[in-house]
Amino acid sequence: MPETKIPYKIYLNENELPKQWYNLRADMKNKPAPLLNPGTGEPMKPEELEAVFCSELVKQELDNTTPYIDIPDEIYNFYKMYRPSPLVRAYFLEKKLGTPAKIYYKFEGNNTSGSHKLNSAIAQAYYAKKQGLKGVTTETGAGQWGTALSMACSFFDLDCKVFMVKVSYEQKPFRREVMRTYGASVTPSPSTETEVGKKILAAHPGTTGSLGCAISEAVEVAVKSEGYRYVLGSVLNQVLLHQSVIGLETKTALDKYGIKPDIIIGCAGGGSNLGGLIAPFMGEKLRGEADYRIIAVEPASCPSLTRGVYAYDFCDTGMVCPLAKMYTLGSDFIPSANHAGGLRYHGMSSILSQLYDDKLMEATSVKQTDVFEAAELFARVEGILPAPESSHAIRVAIDEALKCKETGEEKTIVFGLTGTGYFDMVAYEKFHDGQMSDYIPTDDELAAYRAKLPKIG
Amino acid sequence: MPETKIPYKIYLNENELPKQWYNLRADMKNKPAPLLNPGTGEPMKPEELEAVFCSELVKQELDNTTPYIDIPDEIYNFYKMYRPSPLVRAYFLEKKLGTPAKIYYKFEGNNTSGSHKLNSAIAQAYYAKKQGLKGVTTETGAGQWGTALSMACSFFDLDCKVFMVKVSYEQKPFRREVMRTYGASVTPSPSTETEVGKKILAAHPGTTGSLGCAISEAVEVAVKSEGYRYVLGSVLNQVLLHQSVIGLETKTALDKYGIKPDIIIGCAGGGSNLGGLIAPFMGEKLRGEADYRIIAVEPASCPSLTRGVYAYDFCDTGMVCPLAKMYTLGSDFIPSANHAGGLRYHGMSSILSQLYDDKLMEATSVKQTDVFEAAELFARVEGILPAPESSHAIRVAIDEALKCKETGEEKTIVFGLTGTGYFDMVAYEKFHDGQMSDYIPTDDELAAYRAKLPKIG
Repeated sequence: MPETKIPYKIYLNENELPKQWYNLRADMKNKPAPLLNPGTGEPMKPEELEAVFCSELVKQELDNTTPYIDIPDEIYNFYKMYRPSPLVRAYFLEKKLGTPAKIYYKFEGNNTSGSHKLNSAIAQAYYAKKQGLKGVTTETGAGQWGTALSMACSFFDLDCKVFMVKVSYEQKPFRREVMRTYGASVTPSPSTETEVGKKILAAHPGTTGSLGCAISEAVEVAVKSEGYRYVLGSVLNQVLLHQSVIGLETKTALDKYGIKPDIIIGCAGGGSNLGGLIAPFMGEKLRGEADYRIIAVEPASCPSLTRGVYAYDFCDTGMVCPLAKMYTLGSDFIPSANHAGGLRYHGMSSILSQLYDDKLMEATSVKQTDVFEAAELFARVEGILPAPESSHAIRVAIDEALKCKETGEEKTIVFGLTGTGYFDMVAYEKFHDGQMSDYIPTDDELAAYRAKLPKIG
Repeated sequence: MPETKIPYKIYLNENELPKQWYNLRADMKNKPAPLLNPGTGEPMKPEELEAVFCSELVKQELDNTTPYIDIPDEIYNFYKMYRPSPLVRAYFLEKKLGTPAKIYYKFEGNNTSGSHKLNSAIAQAYYAKKQGLKGVTTETGAGQWGTALSMACSFFDLDCKVFMVKVSYEQKPFRREVMRTYGASVTPSPSTETEVGKKILAAHPGTTGSLGCAISEAVEVAVKSEGYRYVLGSVLNQVLLHQSVIGLETKTALDKYGIKPDIIIGCAGGGSNLGGLIAPFMGEKLRGEADYRIIAVEPASCPSLTRGVYAYDFCDTGMVCPLAKMYTLGSDFIPSANHAGGLRYHGMSSILSQLYDDKLMEATSVKQTDVFEAAELFARVEGILPAPESSHAIRVAIDEALKCKETGEEKTIVFGLTGTGYFDMVAYEKFHDGQMSDYIPTDDELAAYRAKLPKIG
């Protein structure tokens, strides 16, 4: 091992945990486009949003100007249970690759939800409790968000109703059981508990569900139940706000050792992890204080940034949510059944979409067998079995490090390791057994979905 | 939350990681009894042990006098990947219980093996590699040890053959898949790959296996294969030596904040975690420098300390291993099929057995539904879903804290949280569904097993 003063893991002290979230929108010249009412095509008014979302979260959703927002004590104390999370120097990975690059990863998987999702779940549960609500509803796909929300709701003694994409519900009984341990009720989606679920089941009997469909069900239940609101684990501005703790801690840790990254890499599905990780760095970039290459990595089988269009679209299949302007593949898009790597959402956070459109960040897509190859290599040398989602970022970090090996450049690469893959062993098994394909949607397929985009905005 | 200077998590700096293991035996007046050759009844000679174990590990196994043994650089660097592990102040648990007690836990679950087992796995793999071996064999029950060893072997590029108790192999496909990710081969035990496996299958067709049986198979393969040795994750002196890093870090962290524990609690199956956690504290006790209450917690369904006898016994079902003097239930003992909480081994580490016999520590047993009740409470307030094994210690820590609530005493309680329960959700499911019983062996049953103990020593 190289002798160096930089430890394997940089753990901040508890008092270095950020006391405020950073609201990147305050520094954006081109603000993310507002949510629109699908009926009128007009920007959603706060009171309209408050029928679905908690009031304080609506404020945060619409606040494009306040750069820093205090983290309430109750949330801060909860954060202390599992944060600050470590920034790890990947010495063993560097050695294995034989690269002169210096690789760091911010590891968010050391908590029972297994991912960064808890950062926003606890915030959303707190504001729901503060508003005097009885409970919240949500959807979950792979299950990280549902697990995180059930933990958060249990902590604040809130009821938690989770609609879980049916295929995941059946294939991931352990995730379901973790949610039950935290007292959440978990319903496979589509279900007969909602009008939209019944409609989808009638139109597509035997469907194994999708995120867009589960969102519609969760929203319907929230709107129809006294004392409930809907919460969402990604895509929204408020979520990226909460997730800025990831980037703020990362920056504090790097600054402490005088490290300046050249490249920052994150996986991107709805954008919660990437948006959080890059927030303070993108802020510097927007203010002209520093420059970084920022790379969003998405699955080749669900390529919203790299092959989607920047347009207003529905956030859900049932079209009950407001319209959002984002890079999208169309709200009907569902990745190939063989896709095992998460990041399945058809659209991308409005904030990230705008930044990408403004060419402030790059995007690339990777094939899933390449992702799992990187995952297995990483697991073996760094000792952490990564989530398939996170492994998209690992893949590109390795590729960039290998480019450095060719050129001899000693670039500093930072990537987000959003979580662990302990509940994704079925996907690993497919990979080991050679049963994983790399299906990529054709241009014609994508065009067909695109043709169905709403004509608004 | 109380205002205090003690953080939620005490993370030592990397340079505070112990550079030496502590060999508790050096401070024991009554040394643990030697391993005996089952044929001759004489103490095993080093050369006899070296047919089964790595040479350097045999030295460590037999060394009753050297108090500190250097941790080789290669192991030390690996430790840095996931150590020092946090010592956590359980503020939220204290609040929930309303106790004046101060509760701390040393959390060993933040690594992909999910438990403390990695501390010894990496050491054993290192010495095997150093000896120029091709590979190692072992057994695993619940799977933590097998996972840890597969990670360690992958790191040093050693072949790893794991015999996994058949019932676990079938019920825990994810554990198996993690081992495969690290390149290990996993065979359900009993198997037809060994003579002892064939014999057991012939005598008990349809058996779902046991740890004792898997040990016999692993030892047979090690002895018969050129360039292989057998390694074990618990019970042995060498394992407790390696696990002393847990206790050493705990003591350093406590000393840093001037905290002196009153009670130290650990779960005990074979004794690896408890032996490691208590090592430096027991050392002080043995040297008369300090006093602590030390409590071993075992399942009521597998009560080797509380209801076993202190005698020489076989370590395995096939009787191919040396005899060890230990608190034992008899090498044929297998806990009730309903037992879901790990800690299934019929005997206890010779070191801990001697200390217990010398009344230097206490032991207690707990029923499994009480254990899972504690586990769920802990998961909800402390945010970590614990392993069933660790939850035995949680149960008793809670009970001791509740006693403090009655008496008003502000005792300081430290317990070992050995791991996470992410691969144990089937057991949690049983608990949630009310399908968990508390079967406890009768005195007659235990007497029948005891009658079969060898008449040696």
